[in-house]
Amino acid sequence: MKKALILLGCPEAPSQTPMAVYAVHKLTSMGYEVLVASTPSALKLLEVSDPDEYYVKNKIDIESCLDSLEEDSFDLLLGFVHKDAAVSYFVTFYHILNTTSLAVVFERDPQLVEKFEKDIKESTDAITVSVRAYHNPTPIRVKFDRALKQLEG
Amino acid sequence: MKKALILLGCPEAPSQTPMAVYAVHKLTSMGYEVLVASTPSALKLLEVSDPDEYYVKNKIDIESCLDSLEEDSFDLLLGFVHKDAAVSYFVTFYHILNTTSLAVVFERDPQLVEKFEKDIKESTDAITVSVRAYHNPTPIRVKFDRALKQLEG
Repeated sequence: MKKALILLGCPEAPSQTPMAVYAVHKLTSMGYEVLVASTPSALKLLEVSDPDEYYVKNKIDIESCLDSLEEDSFDLLLGFVHKDAAVSYFVTFYHILNTTSLAVVFERDPQLVEKFEKDIKESTDAITVSVRAYHNPTPIRVKFDRALKQLEG
Repeated sequence: MKKALILLGCPEAPSQTPMAVYAVHKLTSMGYEVLVASTPSALKLLEVSDPDEYYVKNKIDIESCLDSLEEDSFDLLLGFVHKDAAVSYFVTFYHILNTTSLAVVFERDPQLVEKFEKDIKESTDAITVSVRAYHNPTPIRVKFDRALKQLEG
């Protein structure tokens, strides 16, 4: 079975937890076994958001995940990025895993969107999707779906 | 069957959508049929957050809901409050419905928490739970669970 790893940093943006659930659901329907690695507060939000674990079946603390990470252990890396720390995590995981990677950059501030996208493009060959968005998830969802189609095609 | 109405305003706070799903799940397990009335962006976040509608089965636009609202049409009103607009919605729905009501106030700024709590207490006899919280849902969840126990007892 194909394996995907989703990275979640600090959950400042209201779209992050909903989009994380959406991404798990989407990737699962595409045949991936999905693991979500996240910071402690992002993890708590995921738990509250999915009390029956109907969507998110596999979760791990992002630091523990990093400690045991090996090259090629996942077929897809997906990172949600709306903070500097999330850029660092994504770049670190990218270089250890050395696998197909997709960064979804979203922020309310267009200058930060540009900065995060540039940071990622300078340090990786990941597919990067970026959106100026905060609490409306639709632009993020649409660009994310399009990027997944591109990956599959 | 008992009926509960959950009000969601502007989803600025990252905890709101996860807590809304959690509340639907909890109230459903307590035997309520639950309807969520929300602003358009809060509704989009809910949809992305629960793509199979596993948790949230009944949703409506908050303005349409208000138009057709009648006294005693719900056994419980639950409002999430972290904006002035959410206070207004809660107070309005409270006075039309005239039923058991619970307001969950959460904000990062302690002065706003105090203000919203005061506003609600001045205008209603609702049970009010207030928490200084933003992206950690645990304090909100714990106080919410406690208030529901109190309602049931």
